[in-house]
Amino acid sequence: MWRADADAARSDGPATAAASYAGTDFHEWWEERHRVVRSSVETVPFEELEGWKFEEGTENLVHESGAFFTVQGMRIRTEDRGSWSQPVINQPEIGILGMLVKEFDGVPHYLVQAKVEPGNLNGLQLSPTVQATRSNFTRVHGGAGTRYLEYFRGGRRGEALVDVLQSEQGSWFWHKRNRNMVVRVTDEVPLHEDFRWVSSHQLHGLLTEPHLVNMDTRTVLACSAYTGPPRGDHGDDPYADALARSYDATAGARLHTRGEILSWFTDMRTRCGWRTELIPLSDVKGWSRSREAIEDDERRRFRIIGVRVKADNREVRQWTQPLLAPTTTALAAFLTKPVDGVLHLLVRARPEPGVLDTVEMGPTVQCVPETDGGAHEPFYEDVARAGAQRVRFDTTLSEEGGRFYHARTRYLIVEADEDFPVEVPDDHRWMAVHQLTDLLRHKHYVNIEARSLLACLHSLR
Amino acid sequence: MWRADADAARSDGPATAAASYAGTDFHEWWEERHRVVRSSVETVPFEELEGWKFEEGTENLVHESGAFFTVQGMRIRTEDRGSWSQPVINQPEIGILGMLVKEFDGVPHYLVQAKVEPGNLNGLQLSPTVQATRSNFTRVHGGAGTRYLEYFRGGRRGEALVDVLQSEQGSWFWHKRNRNMVVRVTDEVPLHEDFRWVSSHQLHGLLTEPHLVNMDTRTVLACSAYTGPPRGDHGDDPYADALARSYDATAGARLHTRGEILSWFTDMRTRCGWRTELIPLSDVKGWSRSREAIEDDERRRFRIIGVRVKADNREVRQWTQPLLAPTTTALAAFLTKPVDGVLHLLVRARPEPGVLDTVEMGPTVQCVPETDGGAHEPFYEDVARAGAQRVRFDTTLSEEGGRFYHARTRYLIVEADEDFPVEVPDDHRWMAVHQLTDLLRHKHYVNIEARSLLACLHSLR
Repeated sequence: MWRADADAARSDGPATAAASYAGTDFHEWWEERHRVVRSSVETVPFEELEGWKFEEGTENLVHESGAFFTVQGMRIRTEDRGSWSQPVINQPEIGILGMLVKEFDGVPHYLVQAKVEPGNLNGLQLSPTVQATRSNFTRVHGGAGTRYLEYFRGGRRGEALVDVLQSEQGSWFWHKRNRNMVVRVTDEVPLHEDFRWVSSHQLHGLLTEPHLVNMDTRTVLACSAYTGPPRGDHGDDPYADALARSYDATAGARLHTRGEILSWFTDMRTRCGWRTELIPLSDVKGWSRSREAIEDDERRRFRIIGVRVKADNREVRQWTQPLLAPTTTALAAFLTKPVDGVLHLLVRARPEPGVLDTVEMGPTVQCVPETDGGAHEPFYEDVARAGAQRVRFDTTLSEEGGRFYHARTRYLIVEADEDFPVEVPDDHRWMAVHQLTDLLRHKHYVNIEARSLLACLHSLR
Repeated sequence: MWRADADAARSDGPATAAASYAGTDFHEWWEERHRVVRSSVETVPFEELEGWKFEEGTENLVHESGAFFTVQGMRIRTEDRGSWSQPVINQPEIGILGMLVKEFDGVPHYLVQAKVEPGNLNGLQLSPTVQATRSNFTRVHGGAGTRYLEYFRGGRRGEALVDVLQSEQGSWFWHKRNRNMVVRVTDEVPLHEDFRWVSSHQLHGLLTEPHLVNMDTRTVLACSAYTGPPRGDHGDDPYADALARSYDATAGARLHTRGEILSWFTDMRTRCGWRTELIPLSDVKGWSRSREAIEDDERRRFRIIGVRVKADNREVRQWTQPLLAPTTTALAAFLTKPVDGVLHLLVRARPEPGVLDTVEMGPTVQCVPETDGGAHEPFYEDVARAGAQRVRFDTTLSEEGGRFYHARTRYLIVEADEDFPVEVPDDHRWMAVHQLTDLLRHKHYVNIEARSLLACLHSLR
């Protein structure tokens, strides 16, 4: 196994390899991109969306080409949380989130991109090398070709270190998955000005800056985690030492075997009696449509809106599209606890209506505090009221700006109190980090919020 | 890992442990069961089905309780094989296929059951310890409790060696899965007369008898395969030796790494553009309903029929239900080839419309020769015309008799010609046995036909 992070962590310093391969300091490059790439986004009424219409009969919001995505309805019947219907983004195509990785002087670097997305609250965020729907790369929109796509598709030139389908937000998407890829190259790669090689160590460090590293980059980083941690010298920091040991399948004890974890997950899936189905948007109850928005009558969930975008560095320079705008900031948190010197994460098996097989493993706490107050989250108080010295990571990051408008999640990694129990409710399990990241080789075990947190966790190594 | 098969293969002989724990020879017991358990099945017109009706509007065939299953429609749109619609069995509940396993004098034995299913062409077949839908074990049908269920659910007393959701026939079921379980017990288990302890070795041997070991037993056996093979003395039979090495992750070379196989499978799933959806039975084109059957106009696929069942040893002694009756016998075959002394199986990534994520890994060849002549099967001729000396396994077995009427599949394991290429079409891959069985720890990689073949393959060890 190729140990990207191990090498990177050792070698990367102030006079970084990243700098030497891009010619400037990262932040200088980033500021420069902000100056050069002009973009603007304005909300517009639905009638100004070009090529989009409300389909007769269903009232679904569709593109006239049949491509991209549609906004339609989803109905959910549960045994434990009532039944409801809501709008949902249906995008059955599988896109690519692909990262090129290459060693410079023995230090692995990722090729990242300064990319404008219409829903980004700050215009530019840091994207993977390729972030493209099938509509993008088959050019339904009639724009320019996707840069670097040839490394991931068809005449691929590198070795795929990561290649797995992973789900995205199950409250907002219907069965959405993207193909998460890391492809290693050894040849010279022509560098476009919107792109830059960044060392693994530096990229993880950038996760502590609000709204900089985008969701797609985070999920790809999480999926490459099984390449392993540094077994570094953490003698002075017991937390960092326990974290390093948690990536190492051979270090210390585990609370549960792999077989026990898989059996638990099978049980959780089997017990969940949620039934979900796609329905016409016209059949959704408790939501209404105005000229500017589709929103729930209680204004607690989200709005579907229209935007007009102008950007200099996208395949198409000007376009309009719908976006989903959440009402407020979400929260996703892992409680952590060392067990026998190995850091464990408290994972929860979570039903989410839009996820293909309904149940995936998610964070300890995942909720929207302002609207649901953590009602279904047994450990909400442990996370929300943790003392500062127990909070290991606390940064607010953006969700996918291509579909969501200013969608923010506060990501927290919190050390549990020392007397926090090892015994937890049925739908929770303590797992070592490698036990969770091993499952990322396979589709649909770990949800998008937990994957973002795993990427954030790597920044603590 | 607990090596059931290894121990069994060594210890089981004519004076078997199985016999000593059941008091009689297996076949004596089996004949006895046939004499004692009286059952009869007759086909009846739909109007004689009690509690079943064609729902107004949709024409779906439903049970008035809303439980069990429904017969409705499925629509499929493909880019490569046209579009069609057909009836499909929709059974969203997840049932349990559970096998108890216990050591007697160091030899692992499975607790099997002589069970009547209405679609069995010979009345009794050999079932797992528990074979029950949720409707069974929550007693929707008002019958007796499911025997031995307590070992698998709620107050489970044993260690789960296997616990995974696996799909079933994607041409006939919509998103059907069952929970495949093997639970190890050490305490005394009370023995009902319909049940019997059979050694792993003997049970695998019984797979060579037509229509004896049922589909549910086969899939559970396949999923327990990763417990490993005997590293026995096969010096006199190069095929058996290559087979034994194929179960052993440490023996010999592999054509592909695990990462390459997972990447290939992700690519196969991504490339498949099939779209499937449930539709009302009334919207299915090219099928029609008479008093006795729903069938396709060309009489090539299957019929939905009604049956009346009388059985002595079931929870309910008399009932009526619909069944799906295929037109003719299907074929499922693995081509095998030793590579560097390790037997490899030629696996094909197969789209099947009713499978949850559309694509799973299946046999080299899977078709209905009489009706489709292997049209979509590149290696049909290699399998159908293999010389007798190359055919390692050839037995016709039944598919699930609780939903299918006289559904038969000829299972073939064929040695490829020596000059058969290692290079194969994109949707095929050569894999060592352990590479395939390792994936059986996870849901939805390997389809039901390939799992049956894996169970049959174990009988060759």
